[in-house]
Amino acid sequence: MKVGVLGGGQLGQMLTIAGYPIGVRVTCFDRSLDVPANLVGAVYTGELSETRKLHRWASHVDVLTYEFENFPAELVADLGELRPMYPGTIPLAIAQDRWAEKRLLAECGMDIAPFRAVTTANDLTRAIDELGLPLVAKTRSGGYDGKGQTVITRDDDLSEALDLLSQSELIVEDLVAFDCEVSVIGVRGRSGEIRIYPVTENEHRGGILRVSRVPARVSAAVEEQAHAHMTALLKRLDYVGVLALELFSVKGRLFANEFAPRVHNSGHWTIEGAETSQFENHLRAIAGLPLGSTDMRSPTAMLNIIGAMPAVADVLAVDGAHLHVYGKDPRPGRKLGHITVTGHDDETVRRRLAAVDAAVHPK
Amino acid sequence: MKVGVLGGGQLGQMLTIAGYPIGVRVTCFDRSLDVPANLVGAVYTGELSETRKLHRWASHVDVLTYEFENFPAELVADLGELRPMYPGTIPLAIAQDRWAEKRLLAECGMDIAPFRAVTTANDLTRAIDELGLPLVAKTRSGGYDGKGQTVITRDDDLSEALDLLSQSELIVEDLVAFDCEVSVIGVRGRSGEIRIYPVTENEHRGGILRVSRVPARVSAAVEEQAHAHMTALLKRLDYVGVLALELFSVKGRLFANEFAPRVHNSGHWTIEGAETSQFENHLRAIAGLPLGSTDMRSPTAMLNIIGAMPAVADVLAVDGAHLHVYGKDPRPGRKLGHITVTGHDDETVRRRLAAVDAAVHPK
Repeated sequence: MKVGVLGGGQLGQMLTIAGYPIGVRVTCFDRSLDVPANLVGAVYTGELSETRKLHRWASHVDVLTYEFENFPAELVADLGELRPMYPGTIPLAIAQDRWAEKRLLAECGMDIAPFRAVTTANDLTRAIDELGLPLVAKTRSGGYDGKGQTVITRDDDLSEALDLLSQSELIVEDLVAFDCEVSVIGVRGRSGEIRIYPVTENEHRGGILRVSRVPARVSAAVEEQAHAHMTALLKRLDYVGVLALELFSVKGRLFANEFAPRVHNSGHWTIEGAETSQFENHLRAIAGLPLGSTDMRSPTAMLNIIGAMPAVADVLAVDGAHLHVYGKDPRPGRKLGHITVTGHDDETVRRRLAAVDAAVHPK
Repeated sequence: MKVGVLGGGQLGQMLTIAGYPIGVRVTCFDRSLDVPANLVGAVYTGELSETRKLHRWASHVDVLTYEFENFPAELVADLGELRPMYPGTIPLAIAQDRWAEKRLLAECGMDIAPFRAVTTANDLTRAIDELGLPLVAKTRSGGYDGKGQTVITRDDDLSEALDLLSQSELIVEDLVAFDCEVSVIGVRGRSGEIRIYPVTENEHRGGILRVSRVPARVSAAVEEQAHAHMTALLKRLDYVGVLALELFSVKGRLFANEFAPRVHNSGHWTIEGAETSQFENHLRAIAGLPLGSTDMRSPTAMLNIIGAMPAVADVLAVDGAHLHVYGKDPRPGRKLGHITVTGHDDETVRRRLAAVDAAVHPK
């Protein structure tokens, strides 16, 4: 079974590695060989505008997928004419438009923070009147890792939002005063089979995921609610592959924030922490194979390595620390790798995570 | 860190995969590109007689190792002049000579079955007189997976032993009526740090490993004894890397059988079943990095796929089944892959192993 992955970043890299044991061969498509996937497998290079190269690549694989949701939907649709493309064009197109995304989440029965589409400065003023401050303004498309968004707390903060508006249409929404941020990752096979991972608790700083923890400190009812939301979304989209849904937990109530139609940073813990990793399950799903168990194997935490690499020996000296290096050049704010920490109980994981954190951020 | 592995079979393949997350790049050396390692990484080709090719390969890496103990010791010694070679020439040379191997195990304080070196037919008759039947005759060097050995139960069975003797010097030894076969896998770093995995219970058929189980059904005293043996052997050899020691358990007493100076089939379960796999720990050891925890994460079993491939979907349909396909052409008696089964308790693993066994050996 040959799988083509549009994009050769760390997600393509980890998909490539996950394919080896089960005999799935991944070939990524990216603009350059200087990408993480090329360190571990095959990368086919070309510009997204080079249709002949894209078609030649696609014609060498059995099934296609993508590792990033900002590819042009038309391009993904075009490739989908050549080979089965999962999760397909619709989830991608919806994920690219925050307005459509929020509408869909609401239609699936999820609570979402009140929001407005904003095209003009007048819209912005009206939205502030109607929703009240504080609000978050986000570009309607294209943002990720905290880029393309700003918080509006008082009237004089409008300048940043107006700046954003000069570049793009916006969505403004109530700033949710959450107790914790969680995500739920699910996978649906070509046969309709569904498996869902335990809810993950996430800690962001500056819009970038820093730490994920499993089990999340949420009630069984919240866990069940998140699973029900995931099931509804997977079915509504007739989805095939791994899907990530981010939510806010507010006093035991969940508010859906956004989804990503792909393997997700908050699911990296599954490589060591779950019976089957999100990467293997994505490959199984799109290849039409039975899905693997999504059970948690032990308490687990994941720490992103951002901006600068720690000393490898310091990280590996911590028992239960599993290092994943992406091989990217260091740059401020850039995800260079992650470390997953496992342990027989929460306290062991907490202690090991603290040791890893000290290695990654030495005083 | 670049590691060169002499040999590109499934062990080289799994070492290559284990290196990716921690940023260790493996290049294997083998005679052909049609080897398992080439499906997942870089293979440098040449004959063992092509010294220039070997040297060019070795000069491109930081440290060397081997995945098979039947390489000529002189060749390994020669490469060791160019780059650090772990675990080095001495463990290899001893593992290649069953007589020296047994002497060393005895010198390390282990019980071993009585044995004799046999060079002539007269030696054979004398050994039978002195030790009594039944005996096992093994070629003094070169055998593996049950090849190059025969059991002598009555005088008229001598023909097979004499056949072997016409090809090679022999060792004959008492046939141990064991309760179970176990192995212990240890790893020693360049700093002298030692970590040892839980004892593995092994089931062979026709001289080939079929199933491994952890935890082994042995007493805590036996477990401790096996660990003490491993520690003694690692220190005696000033060993760096992963070492496997096979033993027989007879009424709570251990008899050492043989060792392998490399990652070992009975340690494949460690990929999913232990905190750190034997493959990653071998790379950490030879790269001079801290060793990873060898703790068992949950009860685990491993089943070899021998001779013919099962239907992949049937295997993956079993929860907790982890498939490892080596990508070799099927051939009777050939190891084509393995399946590791994990579960929260022994009973779950037993049930899942039975389901996997049914998928691999359909009625």
